[in-house]
Amino acid sequence: MKLDKLVGDRFKERPSECEIDSHALMLRGGYIKYVGGGIFSSYMPMKRIARKIEQIIREEMDKIDGQEVSFPVVIPASLWQESGRYESVGKELLRFDDRNEQPHVLGMTHEEPAVQLVREYGKSYVKYPFMIYQIQTKFRDEARPRGGLIRVREFTMKDAYSFHTSREDFEQYYEKCHKAYEQIFARAGIPEVISVASDSGMMGGDISHEFMLLTPVGEDSIAICGECDYRANLEAAASIIENTRDDISEPLNLVHTPDCKTIEDVCEFVGLKQEKSCKAVIYQRNSDDSYVVLFIRGDLDINEKKLTNYLGCDVHPAVIDENSGLCAGYIGGYKLDNKNGAVTVLYDKSLEGTNNLVCGGNKEGYHYTGFDISRDIENTDFYDFAKITDGGICPECHKKAIKVSRGIEVGNIFQLGTKYTEAMDMTYLDSNGQSNYPIMGCYGIGVGRLAASVCEAKHDDYGPVWPMSIAPWQVHLCAVRSDEQSVKSTADNLYAGLQDNGIEVIYDDRNVSAGVMFSDADLLGMPLRVIISPRNIKENCCEIVSRDKSLSLKVPVESSRDKIIETVKEMMGAFKLS
Amino acid sequence: MKLDKLVGDRFKERPSECEIDSHALMLRGGYIKYVGGGIFSSYMPMKRIARKIEQIIREEMDKIDGQEVSFPVVIPASLWQESGRYESVGKELLRFDDRNEQPHVLGMTHEEPAVQLVREYGKSYVKYPFMIYQIQTKFRDEARPRGGLIRVREFTMKDAYSFHTSREDFEQYYEKCHKAYEQIFARAGIPEVISVASDSGMMGGDISHEFMLLTPVGEDSIAICGECDYRANLEAAASIIENTRDDISEPLNLVHTPDCKTIEDVCEFVGLKQEKSCKAVIYQRNSDDSYVVLFIRGDLDINEKKLTNYLGCDVHPAVIDENSGLCAGYIGGYKLDNKNGAVTVLYDKSLEGTNNLVCGGNKEGYHYTGFDISRDIENTDFYDFAKITDGGICPECHKKAIKVSRGIEVGNIFQLGTKYTEAMDMTYLDSNGQSNYPIMGCYGIGVGRLAASVCEAKHDDYGPVWPMSIAPWQVHLCAVRSDEQSVKSTADNLYAGLQDNGIEVIYDDRNVSAGVMFSDADLLGMPLRVIISPRNIKENCCEIVSRDKSLSLKVPVESSRDKIIETVKEMMGAFKLS
Repeated sequence: MKLDKLVGDRFKERPSECEIDSHALMLRGGYIKYVGGGIFSSYMPMKRIARKIEQIIREEMDKIDGQEVSFPVVIPASLWQESGRYESVGKELLRFDDRNEQPHVLGMTHEEPAVQLVREYGKSYVKYPFMIYQIQTKFRDEARPRGGLIRVREFTMKDAYSFHTSREDFEQYYEKCHKAYEQIFARAGIPEVISVASDSGMMGGDISHEFMLLTPVGEDSIAICGECDYRANLEAAASIIENTRDDISEPLNLVHTPDCKTIEDVCEFVGLKQEKSCKAVIYQRNSDDSYVVLFIRGDLDINEKKLTNYLGCDVHPAVIDENSGLCAGYIGGYKLDNKNGAVTVLYDKSLEGTNNLVCGGNKEGYHYTGFDISRDIENTDFYDFAKITDGGICPECHKKAIKVSRGIEVGNIFQLGTKYTEAMDMTYLDSNGQSNYPIMGCYGIGVGRLAASVCEAKHDDYGPVWPMSIAPWQVHLCAVRSDEQSVKSTADNLYAGLQDNGIEVIYDDRNVSAGVMFSDADLLGMPLRVIISPRNIKENCCEIVSRDKSLSLKVPVESSRDKIIETVKEMMGAFKLS
Repeated sequence: MKLDKLVGDRFKERPSECEIDSHALMLRGGYIKYVGGGIFSSYMPMKRIARKIEQIIREEMDKIDGQEVSFPVVIPASLWQESGRYESVGKELLRFDDRNEQPHVLGMTHEEPAVQLVREYGKSYVKYPFMIYQIQTKFRDEARPRGGLIRVREFTMKDAYSFHTSREDFEQYYEKCHKAYEQIFARAGIPEVISVASDSGMMGGDISHEFMLLTPVGEDSIAICGECDYRANLEAAASIIENTRDDISEPLNLVHTPDCKTIEDVCEFVGLKQEKSCKAVIYQRNSDDSYVVLFIRGDLDINEKKLTNYLGCDVHPAVIDENSGLCAGYIGGYKLDNKNGAVTVLYDKSLEGTNNLVCGGNKEGYHYTGFDISRDIENTDFYDFAKITDGGICPECHKKAIKVSRGIEVGNIFQLGTKYTEAMDMTYLDSNGQSNYPIMGCYGIGVGRLAASVCEAKHDDYGPVWPMSIAPWQVHLCAVRSDEQSVKSTADNLYAGLQDNGIEVIYDDRNVSAGVMFSDADLLGMPLRVIISPRNIKENCCEIVSRDKSLSLKVPVESSRDKIIETVKEMMGAFKLS
């Protein structure tokens, strides 16, 4: 490919809307173009990266017996009604009517078409296990698309679905898929991706993982233990609190606490640390707006995922009206009216057995001090609703060694159990002639997000540093001063010679300065750069430098072709797990 | 791939909803699955065919300097408003609002995103020409999806867009693209596809072509001259009528024609051939429902495409109400009230100079005889609105040698002129510093439709006969009586040996009868079948037969692997234009 023919503009200025580097570099390098919120077109370099990533994914999925299929983008609502998700999923599911006023959705994941595709095929146990996957466009109507290709609305995703007749078989396959994912990320150039336990939602069970690229610009928070191998998405991390109890329990005392709107205000006013406060956080169920009051130690935050898993439904922060019977800002556990059970009252484990707390007085402008959970509240259970904190206790090794880091989720593997097969009535007969629901797993990787993550992980101030395995081209050939005949003919020969040997070359023979040429090469980020210049020609050599600066050599013109081919092959070979 | 692991069911019965063979075979063979009207999922064999077709297309597009890019499936309405198509295109454009109530469409073609992608890039003439293409999912909300993958709503299409600074440059590129298309169809196994002139719509000009696979089940009608190389879509074929005029013009005579509702009735009643009648066909413009009365010789049909091109807008068959001033069933040219121009009155060329016609009397129950166009109508122009007929006159060589055939449109190449670049204000500065609109061409091929067309063209009663170039696998290996150790081990060895040499094999070692095995092999349609059976083993040979029966041989087991590899290569080589 001649660079002067490459469609797309490259430019210097960082677009002001870009919060993260990969977004800025992909716009500046002519990789992507904004079309609408969370919707992008791709130029040729991005398309080539995507196709290489897709091919890596395809090969690894095929190795674990995946069968590539395809599901539609536009799906009749009836399928989503079968699974129940047409109602349960929020606005991120784009719903619309076709010309005949039949409701349809844009697929954001494809569990339903997957079950529909194999429902008749999988009638007998002898057909199991099997895995089908596709690499296809999806649409998720995100409220806040951001970060270029990191969080978009339209995206290309590999989604795989496996079907099993036993938990053991599923777990074995899951392990194979976990390894395949490690291989994929290694081959794509980011072997540093780690897998972390993820929340399995209302499914229960404990084997679901997210693959995370750790980076300060990531959207997810991950709890990592410095002492053992515990790693979990914050949402899924159990919080362990060492509760303390004072020897002497003070009596309850109603205190006038004027203008104390926050837990900080109250604690300061009564002269207690936040650890000695009992904070109330109020939600409403999405389904019926009923109230949920959750008490937690004042210095801790709530992990809403744990709450929704406990409740089995989604919630939103409460709007407290007069009929609620709740006294906003002053809600406490002592003598709280739960309206005959209409208000759900929950306690976090951080409060279990604690005393001498300050808590709301259920009366405008008043708090209690001396609140003793064991003494003042009857028959209360305590559950884990708290967010694990930096420096907190590891749920695995119980050492205070948790570090909270940020990460981009580049893939996930997930147990679905029989949720979809039951809902959509997919059954098989086992060897005893008994009817059963198959167990499903699902396995996703976003292609564009993976490309952006690689860019985020591998770039410098001047552009991406693409790994050889997914770079748009393998070699960037610069003919500096191509108006000099010797430069031009040497570069032309090398270009032809490399292409004849299957090397992918982008060739810059424009009549521009070396500065312009090299800054374009930086923005395009090819792993290997070859420079032919008048000075080099005088020395009868050509320069081979790697984008990451680890390699820089001059080789005689005669042997340059073979040396480049050899180097490309070496660099390709590096991107595999041993 | 082991056949017993292939997801998808094969069955014997032709599904009742299938009008055409390819549809039936693709369902029966486990290629596709119905999801909703015009929406299908693909199983692995279909996906493999599609990927091979895509790769052929990609290679040929790259050869003519195409740059693969990608556009979104979901497009903000604003882009389609820029081009004017948001309003002008009918219900086949699926429009919907996202969660923020912003209007969007599902892309059915991508002229708008193509212009948006390169609008800034193409600011100078030095950047031209260039071509960008994508292979991507599209959605067209067809009123009547039919024929399996022939007319669907969701489909994968290669759409290419080229940009030029001169008509000459465009025409040269167009010619290159025409050749690339011939190569694509030849490589996909249907070199018999012909290109025919197609209607350029309201664009004017005469270089747009459709590529047609002739088949009785095709949806399009094509006029082909038996004497010269004229070939055109019926919609685009000029109709030449040899009008005759009687020597003596009879006087106008108002005749009572009770219960004569059709042109046949009237002609029979007055004792005239249909060629001596002047038929009125009434339309209304879609935009404002204004009436269009089109007169044509009674035995001819109207080519609505010609009418809409003439009018510059779309029309629909009229609903004639009382306020129209039109006398439904009795409308004639003589003394027709055009309501001060509110009714558009048009005459087809087939009426020019004719006389002694029967025509409507503009009065309930009455017709005129003796209608003489030249005498009774003043200042009328005649245009070509008629459909060319089988046996009609060739517009090229003027011989009566037109044959009308049916065909499936498997691709098209189309001049767009400056329609989109003007509407979307894409300009470039030419070498004189003058601002101009680039000229565009667009080039489409539907991947699924091409696959179905190949199936339609290459099948027998038992299944598809896939060309080696796009077959899901190259070799179908049957181990008949795999319970016999010698059969199983020979077949296993061959399976491994072929795969090690890059041959794609589907391997059937199920413990089923030869009949079941062969009928499955027929349905899967692999071009080469290899049979290992106890009888063959006794003779120390294996059987190699081609699906199309042109090849059948027995080779010694020892040399079978090499013979198969050689045969696959030979068969692959056949699919190219010389």
